[in-house]
Amino acid sequence: MAAESRPAPTPLLKDELDIVIPTIRNLDFLEMWRPFFQQYHLIIVQDGDPSKTIKVPEGFDYELYNRNDINRILGPKASCISFKDSACRCFGYMVSKKKYIYTIDDDCFVAKDPSGKDINALDQHIKNLLSPSTPFFFNTLYDPYREGADFVRGYPFSLRDGAPTAVSHGLWLNIPDYDAPTQLVKPLERNTRYVDAVMTIPKGTLFPMCGMNLAFNRELIGPAMYFGLMGEGQPIGRYDDMWAGWCTKVICDHLGLGVKTGLPYIWHSKASNPFVNLKKEYKGIFWQEELIPFFQQATLSKDCTTVQKCYIELAKQVKAKLGKVDDYFNKLADAMVTWIEAWDELNPAGAGSAALSAGSSK
Amino acid sequence: MAAESRPAPTPLLKDELDIVIPTIRNLDFLEMWRPFFQQYHLIIVQDGDPSKTIKVPEGFDYELYNRNDINRILGPKASCISFKDSACRCFGYMVSKKKYIYTIDDDCFVAKDPSGKDINALDQHIKNLLSPSTPFFFNTLYDPYREGADFVRGYPFSLRDGAPTAVSHGLWLNIPDYDAPTQLVKPLERNTRYVDAVMTIPKGTLFPMCGMNLAFNRELIGPAMYFGLMGEGQPIGRYDDMWAGWCTKVICDHLGLGVKTGLPYIWHSKASNPFVNLKKEYKGIFWQEELIPFFQQATLSKDCTTVQKCYIELAKQVKAKLGKVDDYFNKLADAMVTWIEAWDELNPAGAGSAALSAGSSK
Repeated sequence: MAAESRPAPTPLLKDELDIVIPTIRNLDFLEMWRPFFQQYHLIIVQDGDPSKTIKVPEGFDYELYNRNDINRILGPKASCISFKDSACRCFGYMVSKKKYIYTIDDDCFVAKDPSGKDINALDQHIKNLLSPSTPFFFNTLYDPYREGADFVRGYPFSLRDGAPTAVSHGLWLNIPDYDAPTQLVKPLERNTRYVDAVMTIPKGTLFPMCGMNLAFNRELIGPAMYFGLMGEGQPIGRYDDMWAGWCTKVICDHLGLGVKTGLPYIWHSKASNPFVNLKKEYKGIFWQEELIPFFQQATLSKDCTTVQKCYIELAKQVKAKLGKVDDYFNKLADAMVTWIEAWDELNPAGAGSAALSAGSSK
Repeated sequence: MAAESRPAPTPLLKDELDIVIPTIRNLDFLEMWRPFFQQYHLIIVQDGDPSKTIKVPEGFDYELYNRNDINRILGPKASCISFKDSACRCFGYMVSKKKYIYTIDDDCFVAKDPSGKDINALDQHIKNLLSPSTPFFFNTLYDPYREGADFVRGYPFSLRDGAPTAVSHGLWLNIPDYDAPTQLVKPLERNTRYVDAVMTIPKGTLFPMCGMNLAFNRELIGPAMYFGLMGEGQPIGRYDDMWAGWCTKVICDHLGLGVKTGLPYIWHSKASNPFVNLKKEYKGIFWQEELIPFFQQATLSKDCTTVQKCYIELAKQVKAKLGKVDDYFNKLADAMVTWIEAWDELNPAGAGSAALSAGSSK
């Protein structure tokens, strides 16, 4: 075909974005994403048995980390990275040196828009991240920065500059991201509704952030994207992305950053086992009833001027207020601090943007 | 056709909903709405010259009020009802005896969904009003009560009952609801994006409520739906619905009621004159910069347990805090009180639901 003989055009942010994929299996799913991902760099975080070899289709540029690598790189601080849970993906955020991250699960395929065209999910995420958000006032025609849309009558002009966008949360066609009880009650429900909208989650409002199809600006919010302690040795699973989402939203609200949700869709191919999920989730189902009010009421002091400072402050509040819910939250609060220490070790101040700080290694 | 020979099925809330239409012209636009509106009762509020006769297509059941009627019914309190501005529509909310109101502008036609089918806007509004809202936490798959959707993973179970829905704000295809400056800058922009979503505006978030295609539960929120002082003798226009929306949202948040926006779409046929609009709006463009922070910070005391009490309390705050912006807001605050007095006079306590109160007349 004529199109294939031409050199592929350089995609947006080609050298400024890493794609982070947590996995335990061969990455055949990348074949379907080849037209959209091949020019980007991949960071693969191999979960489970490190002696297993993960096959990556030819032609992709990647680095791969297994548990041995994580232990070697982080030493004792590796304790903050979960094992046998996709929460391990956040290690990839930490080792990246790029400004933007896109993370996707290996059971997510390319979805089609209503006209039947393949959706370039990454391209839409990049558009979401590169245009401002509107967290301070709701726009009824959704994202006012999209083509064919604008701010409606009654939208204050002083707010039309918007706020920098830190997070772009994409959705899923086919298998919706339901909890185990809903999966059990509605085993046949599929998401077939393509909602052609991107919107900002208003300031002060929490949302359930799913890590399946998620992009963010690592410079703006990276250190808040910690996926917690899940999986082996921990009392819960499947709350990794939720935890990151609650922390991230509180910090974005404090720092005046925006979080978008909506487009792009990916095709979520198969539902995880609801019985297994119930076992992982059931404590979280109780705990979230206390976690949500905690995060809804959380406020950060004026001194919290960086994401790291915000996160350490939040860790203190987690220990003070959630430690009594379960001792797990004391452990988690400690891990949050370890995470920031590890982040700062791998990301010495100024290294991303300007000259490398001389006193960066520990 | 076979379908026409069968008796039309009784539509939802046939005897519990009034359609309120403010107008200055013959209501030919109702022909297009006949299949959807004909079984409902209409309240027509005739604006402008009361000696003019407004023609209503045959077969519609309606009552019509012109300025003489408003003056006769309200006496000196008629001063709170605007003249030569579609803000006069709120008189229709006051004289209605029904539980639900749908209001629509006479330049709004039936829109088509992406499959080409005529959209029954009223039916969708009723569905929105009869299902709960989710103001306390954001659901990423939008209205969880719609068919094919539900609450996603991480949504607290204690919040899945939702809150009663007070308002359903519908949108517009073709001519978007832009202010005069945006109309001037983008004269050719048309809204062609059909977003298949209904969502709750989160608690604590304000939005620009447009009165073109709007439904609400009159029992839950009616007395807050005052469209202010606009038009003849007033320094601004085109802020009637915005004012009502800001007041309504603050009161809904205080009372734990929900406000939805999104579907249904109507087809907005023609743009109003941007030069005329600019003249009406320009003071509002300045004032809204102070109004939005005022409403964002407004809190109501615990004693405000009814919409009327909330509204009177809000009127006091308007006088205290916005009177210094312009003397207009002192007049508006007084009119807000007059509006509530008039509302209570026409709607004596208990008349809507139980026996008529004996001491209701003044």
